Amino acid sequence: MSKGTLYGVGIGPGDPELMTLKAARLIAAAPVIAFFAKKGRTGHARRIVEGRLHAEVLELRLEYPFTTEISVADPAYLADMGVFYEACARDLAAHLDEGRDVAVLCEGDPFFYGSFMYLFDRLKDHYTHEVIPGVTGMAGCWTSAGAPMTHGDDVLSVLPGTLDEDGLALRLAQCDAAVIMKVGRNLPKIRRALARAGLMERALYVERGTMDDQHIERLADKRDEPAPYFSIVLVPGRQRPR
Amino acid sequence: MSKGTLYGVGIGPGDPELMTLKAARLIAAAPVIAFFAKKGRTGHARRIVEGRLHAEVLELRLEYPFTTEISVADPAYLADMGVFYEACARDLAAHLDEGRDVAVLCEGDPFFYGSFMYLFDRLKDHYTHEVIPGVTGMAGCWTSAGAPMTHGDDVLSVLPGTLDEDGLALRLAQCDAAVIMKVGRNLPKIRRALARAGLMERALYVERGTMDDQHIERLADKRDEPAPYFSIVLVPGRQRPR
Repeated sequence: MSKGTLYGVGIGPGDPELMTLKAARLIAAAPVIAFFAKKGRTGHARRIVEGRLHAEVLELRLEYPFTTEISVADPAYLADMGVFYEACARDLAAHLDEGRDVAVLCEGDPFFYGSFMYLFDRLKDHYTHEVIPGVTGMAGCWTSAGAPMTHGDDVLSVLPGTLDEDGLALRLAQCDAAVIMKVGRNLPKIRRALARAGLMERALYVERGTMDDQHIERLADKRDEPAPYFSIVLVPGRQRPR
Repeated sequence: MSKGTLYGVGIGPGDPELMTLKAARLIAAAPVIAFFAKKGRTGHARRIVEGRLHAEVLELRLEYPFTTEISVADPAYLADMGVFYEACARDLAAHLDEGRDVAVLCEGDPFFYGSFMYLFDRLKDHYTHEVIPGVTGMAGCWTSAGAPMTHGDDVLSVLPGTLDEDGLALRLAQCDAAVIMKVGRNLPKIRRALARAGLMERALYVERGTMDDQHIERLADKRDEPAPYFSIVLVPGRQRPR
């Protein structure tokens, strides 16, 4: 019996119509889909593909072991996540060994800050695989904000809000456009770093971009409260004369 | 008579199946499509949508005034491009004023290094508009290369190969993953900057990613000849233990 193929399928930033034609075709045909979800939640990826799955699909729900955010610097986090990803990879392998293709649903793009990569790393040498790129969450956000991001020779930096203030300010000073992810509890620090780099006036705050309940405002107008997981800060590049 | 709507439609990195469901729907319905092309060429964007257009579509070909690359630092370039974009905007406006929707085909994502932004800036205050994000060329490239790009807290920088060697080396030293665009004649300089930042071993060279004739190799193995327009250099982020 031949083994199944592992697909990593980018399903885009949230609006179901922003998945690619190829993603829609593969998801409709997949005998098994797998997706990550937080405990007690439907799973954001699962919601995006609602109504598009094969009638007899088997669903593999991969539930994160943590319900709240733990610092990635914590050794316990790394160890527990390693055990979790190992178990997920074994679950997928069981289907692949039985000859069933498995499509892993990936929010945004599979190779851009995605959990899928930890399964890919464990399985790629043992199974045929194909990855389908997707529209990133950040592209969904800058589109929703009506904000042209990068022109001509702009330098763009994508920065985690978890960097310390000096690290953020240093990198912000050397780019024309920036995306700051993992805003969460880091908003006051991000704000200080942007001010030091002289970028506060251009900064936009985007919550749940492309989703029904999206919220966008100038960061300068935003209150300093903790931000939800799906929030990012955008600094559009300089407008060039042309 | 009501005016038409301006659509900026991201059509993805090259493989026609990597456009979004929404892009395909809007393109099939558009009474007018517009796209940029070089003199004497079909136009890359036009080729991607072949077979998907409305039977009675009007096609607006926007032909760049230059056949070879001119430095963006040259004042003549800026002035000539300004005249060109003004003329393009007037051509689009004529259709919009007649009540016809116009879909501008945008390779990759419209707000990410796209010529569409120069039309958007000129027309957005006068017409209803909607922008549809797309899969970027760089996401197409890293997927084709089988290269997971960014994990966890990685810093990603997108750099134009036109930066000077010191500017490239400085920014490369402060990121975990990098994408270098506009490789063209800048390859020897890019190579020196990557070597100074200690990133040469991880660097990949990708030509025409996701297209039928794509070519991928380690940058260390690549000969020092001028690279075509659709080539980029990828530096995948560090592989994290997990």
